[in-house]
Amino acid sequence: MNQIRGRFQKDAAETVINYTSSLPFDWRLYHFDIRGSIVHARMLAKQNLISTSEAQALEEGLKKVEVEISEGRFVLKPELEDIHMAIEQRLGEMVGVVAGKLHTARSRNDQVALDTRLFTRDAIRQIQTDIRKLQFSLIKQATTNINTLLPGYTHLQPAQPVLLAHHLLAYFEMFERDYARFEDAYQRADVMPLGSGALAGAAYDLDREFVANELEFAHISQNSLDAVSDRDFVIEYLSCASQCMMHISRLAEELVLWSSAEFAFVEMDDSYATPSSIMPQKKNPDVAELGRGKTGRIYGHLMGMLTAMKGLPLSYNRDLQEDKEALFDAHDTLSASLNVFSEMLLTLSFKPQNMARALAQGFILATDVADYLVKKGLSFREAHAITGRLVTKTISKSKTLESLTLAEYQEFSPLFGDDILQISAIRSVASKDVLGGTAYQQVTKQLEKAHKIIS
Amino acid sequence: MNQIRGRFQKDAAETVINYTSSLPFDWRLYHFDIRGSIVHARMLAKQNLISTSEAQALEEGLKKVEVEISEGRFVLKPELEDIHMAIEQRLGEMVGVVAGKLHTARSRNDQVALDTRLFTRDAIRQIQTDIRKLQFSLIKQATTNINTLLPGYTHLQPAQPVLLAHHLLAYFEMFERDYARFEDAYQRADVMPLGSGALAGAAYDLDREFVANELEFAHISQNSLDAVSDRDFVIEYLSCASQCMMHISRLAEELVLWSSAEFAFVEMDDSYATPSSIMPQKKNPDVAELGRGKTGRIYGHLMGMLTAMKGLPLSYNRDLQEDKEALFDAHDTLSASLNVFSEMLLTLSFKPQNMARALAQGFILATDVADYLVKKGLSFREAHAITGRLVTKTISKSKTLESLTLAEYQEFSPLFGDDILQISAIRSVASKDVLGGTAYQQVTKQLEKAHKIIS
Amino acid sequence: MNQIRGRFQKDAAETVINYTSSLPFDWRLYHFDIRGSIVHARMLAKQNLISTSEAQALEEGLKKVEVEISEGRFVLKPELEDIHMAIEQRLGEMVGVVAGKLHTARSRNDQVALDTRLFTRDAIRQIQTDIRKLQFSLIKQATTNINTLLPGYTHLQPAQPVLLAHHLLAYFEMFERDYARFEDAYQRADVMPLGSGALAGAAYDLDREFVANELEFAHISQNSLDAVSDRDFVIEYLSCASQCMMHISRLAEELVLWSSAEFAFVEMDDSYATPSSIMPQKKNPDVAELGRGKTGRIYGHLMGMLTAMKGLPLSYNRDLQEDKEALFDAHDTLSASLNVFSEMLLTLSFKPQNMARALAQGFILATDVADYLVKKGLSFREAHAITGRLVTKTISKSKTLESLTLAEYQEFSPLFGDDILQISAIRSVASKDVLGGTAYQQVTKQLEKAHKIIS
Amino acid sequence: MNQIRGRFQKDAAETVINYTSSLPFDWRLYHFDIRGSIVHARMLAKQNLISTSEAQALEEGLKKVEVEISEGRFVLKPELEDIHMAIEQRLGEMVGVVAGKLHTARSRNDQVALDTRLFTRDAIRQIQTDIRKLQFSLIKQATTNINTLLPGYTHLQPAQPVLLAHHLLAYFEMFERDYARFEDAYQRADVMPLGSGALAGAAYDLDREFVANELEFAHISQNSLDAVSDRDFVIEYLSCASQCMMHISRLAEELVLWSSAEFAFVEMDDSYATPSSIMPQKKNPDVAELGRGKTGRIYGHLMGMLTAMKGLPLSYNRDLQEDKEALFDAHDTLSASLNVFSEMLLTLSFKPQNMARALAQGFILATDVADYLVKKGLSFREAHAITGRLVTKTISKSKTLESLTLAEYQEFSPLFGDDILQISAIRSVASKDVLGGTAYQQVTKQLEKAHKIIS
Repeated sequence: MNQIRGRFQKDAAETVINYTSSLPFDWRLYHFDIRGSIVHARMLAKQNLISTSEAQALEEGLKKVEVEISEGRFVLKPELEDIHMAIEQRLGEMVGVVAGKLHTARSRNDQVALDTRLFTRDAIRQIQTDIRKLQFSLIKQATTNINTLLPGYTHLQPAQPVLLAHHLLAYFEMFERDYARFEDAYQRADVMPLGSGALAGAAYDLDREFVANELEFAHISQNSLDAVSDRDFVIEYLSCASQCMMHISRLAEELVLWSSAEFAFVEMDDSYATPSSIMPQKKNPDVAELGRGKTGRIYGHLMGMLTAMKGLPLSYNRDLQEDKEALFDAHDTLSASLNVFSEMLLTLSFKPQNMARALAQGFILATDVADYLVKKGLSFREAHAITGRLVTKTISKSKTLESLTLAEYQEFSPLFGDDILQISAIRSVASKDVLGGTAYQQVTKQLEKAHKIIS
Repeated sequence: MNQIRGRFQKDAAETVINYTSSLPFDWRLYHFDIRGSIVHARMLAKQNLISTSEAQALEEGLKKVEVEISEGRFVLKPELEDIHMAIEQRLGEMVGVVAGKLHTARSRNDQVALDTRLFTRDAIRQIQTDIRKLQFSLIKQATTNINTLLPGYTHLQPAQPVLLAHHLLAYFEMFERDYARFEDAYQRADVMPLGSGALAGAAYDLDREFVANELEFAHISQNSLDAVSDRDFVIEYLSCASQCMMHISRLAEELVLWSSAEFAFVEMDDSYATPSSIMPQKKNPDVAELGRGKTGRIYGHLMGMLTAMKGLPLSYNRDLQEDKEALFDAHDTLSASLNVFSEMLLTLSFKPQNMARALAQGFILATDVADYLVKKGLSFREAHAITGRLVTKTISKSKTLESLTLAEYQEFSPLFGDDILQISAIRSVASKDVLGGTAYQQVTKQLEKAHKIIS
Repeated sequence: MNQIRGRFQKDAAETVINYTSSLPFDWRLYHFDIRGSIVHARMLAKQNLISTSEAQALEEGLKKVEVEISEGRFVLKPELEDIHMAIEQRLGEMVGVVAGKLHTARSRNDQVALDTRLFTRDAIRQIQTDIRKLQFSLIKQATTNINTLLPGYTHLQPAQPVLLAHHLLAYFEMFERDYARFEDAYQRADVMPLGSGALAGAAYDLDREFVANELEFAHISQNSLDAVSDRDFVIEYLSCASQCMMHISRLAEELVLWSSAEFAFVEMDDSYATPSSIMPQKKNPDVAELGRGKTGRIYGHLMGMLTAMKGLPLSYNRDLQEDKEALFDAHDTLSASLNVFSEMLLTLSFKPQNMARALAQGFILATDVADYLVKKGLSFREAHAITGRLVTKTISKSKTLESLTLAEYQEFSPLFGDDILQISAIRSVASKDVLGGTAYQQVTKQLEKAHKIIS
Repeated sequence: MNQIRGRFQKDAAETVINYTSSLPFDWRLYHFDIRGSIVHARMLAKQNLISTSEAQALEEGLKKVEVEISEGRFVLKPELEDIHMAIEQRLGEMVGVVAGKLHTARSRNDQVALDTRLFTRDAIRQIQTDIRKLQFSLIKQATTNINTLLPGYTHLQPAQPVLLAHHLLAYFEMFERDYARFEDAYQRADVMPLGSGALAGAAYDLDREFVANELEFAHISQNSLDAVSDRDFVIEYLSCASQCMMHISRLAEELVLWSSAEFAFVEMDDSYATPSSIMPQKKNPDVAELGRGKTGRIYGHLMGMLTAMKGLPLSYNRDLQEDKEALFDAHDTLSASLNVFSEMLLTLSFKPQNMARALAQGFILATDVADYLVKKGLSFREAHAITGRLVTKTISKSKTLESLTLAEYQEFSPLFGDDILQISAIRSVASKDVLGGTAYQQVTKQLEKAHKIIS
């Protein structure tokens, strides 16, 4: 029978063990659990709650258990319930009765809060590194393709010409916000809960500052009831991850679109594309599609944890155990997605000539015509209306703006002069010379900023 | 290099393999995949698309592969991409070049649709069995406790007395609706997609009816584009599972409440309760809490799949691969929850004396007083108002309805007669003698119906 | 002070009234509420619980109230709390004290369940009509464009040629499943809850069958506790709506794609397109985009109600009030989306010549080449591999399959004969002559079936 | 016909107008829209893009339009499409052709981004004020009830005694995190997008810094494509709101529980409670229930917006329009909930005597017994095991810990001395004298901190 079932007549039913055991997934916290336990033991010794030699025995034992787990030699059976009990039990086998002192002034409630916070801090730092890697790929491609133009779209309709680098840097901005959001989330995860006991605080003279310092926590929890029942930091991680994955899904959508035969703006490297089991010609952007599809998974984890926490009374409830699988899977998914997208981006071949062809179709310079009239003194609304009529007429004649003569322009307004014939995608881009605009010099300035940010 | 990368210069990058391989989870479909392949091979032979001996070789080879997998002897490496390719490759090693004929007139797109539908059909039948088991436990406890009264609550305030059996049967009704919803979902999962090819149908003279019959499908898909891009049946499973889990969460909430020291309506068996690592007196309803918490997980899977499918153009897109982990985990979670709740319910000890004590507090018979006045001729609104005043006055005197004298009643209305002193929880319950009401004879009738339904 | 605050010393605080009043949205149930009340009154009279003349007075009064509300003459102030109390109060002003008898043997808990079920039944029938309308548009366009071919896509890569009609009918299938799901949901909404009282059933001799018959309900609720706390039918409506809207989002995505300059497979009618405030040339598919975007809204309502119901103990809790706004908005959104898409579809101009051009690019007939080799005796895997090499080589020479000579084919396999030069998109489509395949005769058969289904 | 439909032959269909018009809800942005337009006009004049008198005419006109709208005199018909067009059109009627110059160098895409950011900034500041108000109520009650003890719960089982003030301050901590999250969200909302044009930036010499300063923005958007397609700030608001509402749901759950007859820890003031339409004795915590239920609504909005943004290509798509109703309703719901809970909390009557009675039941001091043994030298695990046996035995004798004699204690361990008889809830609380613990002096310290934070 499990060591802590002191007052119970029976052991847990097997279905109960299988249903409630978190060991199949929380084994992953073992490193954090042991790290926390070592510091806890040191603090107990420092406060004379255990002897120095006891602390040393605990520390040595814990380190041995860690090696055993990391080498796969300690078999984690579900009936050990969770990683905390598993480690404590193995520790007991190794160091004897002193193992029972480790739990002094500590409950699994504050212990698991500690472990999960340690994991979350690490996870955030990992994701931030992954984001930087993806941002680097974006900058790299932006730099390489600094002179490439393509249609900018609204409503997936060609709208105005933009630089490809400008387009790629739009994603840089999104991921930069994600980076900042994760940083803010880190600050709120960076709170040391140990000493909160089961819910009411510990009845011992602890040195919580010592523990916080050793574990490099910036803050210490201020309310024990809150500390053991708070999973805000998990939800905040999942919120940040959801937004970040949403950005990935947008990038993914564009890569799928741009890889299509109709757009053909980009070609995937063979090593980042996937064949068909039946259609020999296919070169599919599966990585991008999966990245888009996995967005649902992360949203789902966020929704799952929000649901799990809804309406829970204080303080700890077993429902909280559901935090870990959601957190682990969201983290693994996001990290893998950021990494595979980083690599894939670097191997993309953009097709400037196809982008140029797309620019030439349609009436992507119509706004430039309207702006031309505004600069000649019309109000924007008048200019917009005239250009609208001009576009309609030109379409009806199956012509393009570029092929119109001055006389044809002047049918719509006497304000048109010779220089209207010089409108072009390149001039259009150059004219957006405002902070954040797509003009070459603005974009290169942003590229420099971006370089500085990630280095 | 992977056998189907015919036109590619390079193998997939390792991160791509890890990111895209579904083998770590879809191995679970191996039985269904092999079953489908055997029938496909037979059909190909029947239609003279392969020879009978080829079909036999394929069938024998497939059966051997199945044994290897079931015995854990075939190592499923991620680079095999998915269970379909893994089986086909192993089959090739076993039976040689004829293995290459199995994919005639079939694509992974219709194959995975088939496998997932076979899984879903099985999963639904499993859940229906699990639901019946839980319903049995409810009926069992209802029958055992057929004479037990407790307060019925609205807004968690004691409202009117009800039979415990009536309360338990409310859950029977919920799970009965779940059963029916799963049945409807089964009908829509029960559609045979093979023959849809990659997306356009097969260019061979197939006998789709034969395949459907052999695999016991009631329907055959009618549009190949739809057939390979449809995951409605997965989402419908998840929708049904979400509602069912929501019902479990309500039952769980009540078990948590009723196990509290304040309610104390029920005591868990030791084998279904959990101790504290720090508080020796604790007997925690962890199973109920986890059941409540896991609701979020299933909602999350539903939301994840709805998100993944949103805005996908036809036909197959790799995003669809996200269906499986959601489906598997939702199914495992729901099935385990139904089972552990079934068992836990059977071991509950209800505490009729505590329920009786709870009935005696408060003014749970006030509606009976109002109904009394209505039967004496007052309109319900007048009766309600008078009783309201009577309750207020009685509270202010720190008395209960049961302790009032006839004179005290008559201060509020001359319509009160001697018989008002006979109101009681038992009479209150008995008076609800309407179909669906809590009167003993109504509840026993429902119990009989319930017995018939599940047997 | 509100008439039912009998035992309270104070009226509700104004913030409480504003926070809790459902009248700003549940006024919409007034017709259903009055219809239910009239039948309830008749039943009370039939059972001699009120007199016939009282019933008649109530009925006449109720009808007058209905007229007042429908004509906007009865001002529904929030402090009346909800539509039930508002109507009862107005009835009281009209018919006097007898109004107080209407609430005999009825609670707001079963009353609101009734009203919401009546609304849901109507809503489902409305949606089914709307679905039929959209299906009609799909059939209409499929019939008109019966000879049009376009590339079928997987992974948004051209995969195999298909008929446009086949593609449109894929959506017919999706909406047909939606129709069936709503039908199943209807069956479970079609349950008459009146007589369940507040939670325990009524203490009067009611005729629930009479009420059910008058209100055309097929079923009567069997457990009063369940009947007042069940919102499964709302969630099921929202689940069905979510799937249906997901299908709309896929159709929307394709319309957006196909309207793009790069695809140019379709042109919206001017009356279904939207201009830009700044770019005069733009013709944006805003309706399609909004349909896609509104998917989130309906998913959100589903998630909202699932969350609201999670972990609620029996029986009625005020949380349930959240059902109505979710239901109303989801219904309005879905109905409007189905209708506007139906109309928009009818006005679409498809561009067969652009589809033909898209077919000519790429190697969309590669599978036909592989199938050709299979029919000459190769295993599919061999045929797939050979065709893969052939495609690679052809791409490297910047040629297309159609431009290859027989000699060039035979470099890859001696099995190629003269007839390989006859492969074409039309023959490819014709070869998929299997149930559900894209061959003309299969698609026309499906069109006939579809016609029958909707008429 | 709408003024910007220049190139269109037909007006929008009526269903299209109804489906796409945002005016029914975005009228709410009118103040922000006009404020932004005035600053834009001033900037245009400053940059000599319009004349000073034109700017003045525009400003005066805009101010008149604002008055008309605020006084309800300007009827906002759906066919005006959105608040931006509505204001511009009315402006045109007032000031003539110069109105057409206002849209110079501006698109609705950057305009609506500006308006929504202005709204969001305001909304966040409002919520922060509302949070402070709720925190004040918590502090107020904590201070008033500073000496009150109640059972602290884990798993809804009595665990260890805590101060009520400590319990209330746990919520203070939660809302403090919410406050900080909203503050971080504010920083990311505080970005000025005007000048981004439709997507590519403006082709005019703008002074974006001037606009940012006038509108008190701390930052200016750095990428025009991102600026018009970014709704992160809306999602971040909804994420913060979801977590905050989750905290409210927990508080709500406890108020519902504590209001129950079984707990009876608190009594609602009559003005914050709700009666039953049928049960005269009822006093229902409807406000708390609704607060709990409305959690789903906010989660739903979050899920809705995450879904809407999933997989959208750059840049602006009409799907983005879905941001506003979600944002408005989430804000209104959260603000109303915070306010009504603040007020309700202040009027609560806590019932210390009932809390004391609850403390006396059960074995809430068992951990103190274990801690006692630890301090006598046992390891915690031994102490826990001994106490477990002691509890089991005591229960079996239907006794409580408080009623045990020293001899009975010593049956389980000779380490028990006289002082064990002095364990009490008060001493237990006092012993948790660690930072964040429930000891009186710790809690008063936290109260002081809390006071400082909110003042």
